[in-house]
Amino acid sequence: MSTVKPPENPESDPRVKAVFDDIRETRGSDFINNVWRYLAFDPQLLEEMWRDVRDLMARETLLEPKVKEMIYVAVSIANNCDYCVHSHTAAAKAKGMSDGEHAELLRIVSTAARTNHILNGLRPPIDEAFDADV
Amino acid sequence: MSTVKPPENPESDPRVKAVFDDIRETRGSDFINNVWRYLAFDPQLLEEMWRDVRDLMARETLLEPKVKEMIYVAVSIANNCDYCVHSHTAAAKAKGMSDGEHAELLRIVSTAARTNHILNGLRPPIDEAFDADV
Amino acid sequence: MSTVKPPENPESDPRVKAVFDDIRETRGSDFINNVWRYLAFDPQLLEEMWRDVRDLMARETLLEPKVKEMIYVAVSIANNCDYCVHSHTAAAKAKGMSDGEHAELLRIVSTAARTNHILNGLRPPIDEAFDADV
Amino acid sequence: MSTVKPPENPESDPRVKAVFDDIRETRGSDFINNVWRYLAFDPQLLEEMWRDVRDLMARETLLEPKVKEMIYVAVSIANNCDYCVHSHTAAAKAKGMSDGEHAELLRIVSTAARTNHILNGLRPPIDEAFDADV
Amino acid sequence: MSTVKPPENPESDPRVKAVFDDIRETRGSDFINNVWRYLAFDPQLLEEMWRDVRDLMARETLLEPKVKEMIYVAVSIANNCDYCVHSHTAAAKAKGMSDGEHAELLRIVSTAARTNHILNGLRPPIDEAFDADV
Amino acid sequence: MSTVKPPENPESDPRVKAVFDDIRETRGSDFINNVWRYLAFDPQLLEEMWRDVRDLMARETLLEPKVKEMIYVAVSIANNCDYCVHSHTAAAKAKGMSDGEHAELLRIVSTAARTNHILNGLRPPIDEAFDADV
Repeated sequence: MSTVKPPENPESDPRVKAVFDDIRETRGSDFINNVWRYLAFDPQLLEEMWRDVRDLMARETLLEPKVKEMIYVAVSIANNCDYCVHSHTAAAKAKGMSDGEHAELLRIVSTAARTNHILNGLRPPIDEAFDADV
Repeated sequence: MSTVKPPENPESDPRVKAVFDDIRETRGSDFINNVWRYLAFDPQLLEEMWRDVRDLMARETLLEPKVKEMIYVAVSIANNCDYCVHSHTAAAKAKGMSDGEHAELLRIVSTAARTNHILNGLRPPIDEAFDADV
Repeated sequence: MSTVKPPENPESDPRVKAVFDDIRETRGSDFINNVWRYLAFDPQLLEEMWRDVRDLMARETLLEPKVKEMIYVAVSIANNCDYCVHSHTAAAKAKGMSDGEHAELLRIVSTAARTNHILNGLRPPIDEAFDADV
Repeated sequence: MSTVKPPENPESDPRVKAVFDDIRETRGSDFINNVWRYLAFDPQLLEEMWRDVRDLMARETLLEPKVKEMIYVAVSIANNCDYCVHSHTAAAKAKGMSDGEHAELLRIVSTAARTNHILNGLRPPIDEAFDADV
Repeated sequence: MSTVKPPENPESDPRVKAVFDDIRETRGSDFINNVWRYLAFDPQLLEEMWRDVRDLMARETLLEPKVKEMIYVAVSIANNCDYCVHSHTAAAKAKGMSDGEHAELLRIVSTAARTNHILNGLRPPIDEAFDADV
Repeated sequence: MSTVKPPENPESDPRVKAVFDDIRETRGSDFINNVWRYLAFDPQLLEEMWRDVRDLMARETLLEPKVKEMIYVAVSIANNCDYCVHSHTAAAKAKGMSDGEHAELLRIVSTAARTNHILNGLRPPIDEAFDADV
């Protein structure tokens, strides 16, 4: 159940077609997953979101693709985005994340969450040694 | 301002002393940061949290130390733990994260957050292609 | 799948009937959506929640109804309440939110989330100029 | 640093004075903590929030006062409300929470957070056995 | 839809079998719910999570079992873990939580959330009286 | 205390200077607040974030400026970004938000949070009537 109705023939809008063409070319695949088909209800929003994700995740940057997807999954778990957890876990696997690394990712995410909550409950002063601005 | 009063002579308790000794030996440093000094108000909680963090973050596992710290920071930002963001950003830097990689980490965290919120607002159906359980 | 079993004949309880009657009268409709039918498992909780929502959202206040619903949706997205995102997006549309305004709402919510996460990662000092208490 | 300026003579407004009088009488103390002094910038908001908190936390209900405060602290940690964590941890202690119980509260909160994140990452199907609505 | 594929014969792995045996013995029941069956994709993660939950929730500690489950539910609601809300609400009921106490739990969680958000919006200074570290 | 050290002479970098010039011109003011001065540690991140915020918040779009800032504040409260709550509450006031509207904003945010938590605890089925995709 979605809050918007995706257009029936999204590529009849040239702005949408241009994004879909770029998705297919960037990925070397004809598969357009639902997030883009639903975002097509507003071409500007579609363009902005695809540009952001493509420039960061589909292009060469400092970190390796697998690591970038694992960080993306970590944030998506903490923000509890159902769709994002599924799509980016699949992407991380496609970029080489093994089952063992997946388990380790979940171990880091959950241990961080554990200490995040303890410290948000204890609230000790932050050590001066951690201040980068000195 | 903290919700607990840390013990004045924490190492007079042998369980606390054992943990502090292990922290010093594991890190090769005499610096005991505040989280451990405040957690010393309850030796069991101190032992459990140190064991979890040490086994995962200070020992060799599948992922490299710098990457593990970067994932830890990502979760701590999303859960908004002030202390954890500071201590684990410092740890990531100590394990080799450059300023450029720090900026890229923030770019991934914030782009993930952006798409997390859009998708939690749109709620499109999750593509069957992402189901690992088939 | 719910954590409570809604009563089969909720209006046999006069406190529930009074709330349902008020819902129907306030909205000019016979439709009682699920949140109220499930909350009927505890009449006090039902009364309190209906009173809060009615007084704020169904009565005239300073802000216009459409804007109030859009703010409600924004919070519900950030807190990731599936039911609330659906019911209040539908309410915002019923009160005049166009598709373009819906897209702009998602743009604001997601851009705010992006900067929220960057700033929770950077943690710069808050400028004195923003202090209202001076 | 606050986003509102509290009134200098809040009790010159009779609605504010009535709330402050009720706070003093309910608590048997002259201490009015900051949340109420700042909320006084809008008497209606002050009245509503005090009514909610008083009826639930200062009056006899099914659960014992200490337990109610501990649940309140747990939610405030998860939502990361700095002020609330401090004020309700203090209230829980005033109502009998020992240091050992405080540590156990933090253990439950942090273990729950750990499993919350693992399960939000794994997303197994929910067992039918947990459905209350059958 | 899950992000991992659970093993078809999980108990063919002796580490998994040992955990499942312990679950059955601890609970006096043959029912192994999905979280454990899916976590079996990584025996170490399964062992760690079961150990944490068992030691805290299935053994005698300072707080009574029902109260511990109610705090667990409160955190799971705030972190919005669908699976956890269902499984621990069922556990709380199995340990004696009445419908009235369930409603009161929801009242505390939601009132805390309400004040958490108001205070995170107002951001008044925290009263010195709440500082435990003096 | 920040996780990055802002450059001492940020405008010696032409990319930073270009952004700062655009901030001054867009706002008609010489005041550069801290978020931009700290983001200057990475010119690309600075450029991207300023572009996003400027295009959405400083330019004419469908919604009026005051409403856009109020939605921004709502999200920032729910995500608990200290800096963002302060800077965007100040911006909303500068764009015409009265004290009464500020109180109403807090009332909507906190009532939404209350119902978000109750519904995330109850988890009733979502009514078919809310499905936009039919």
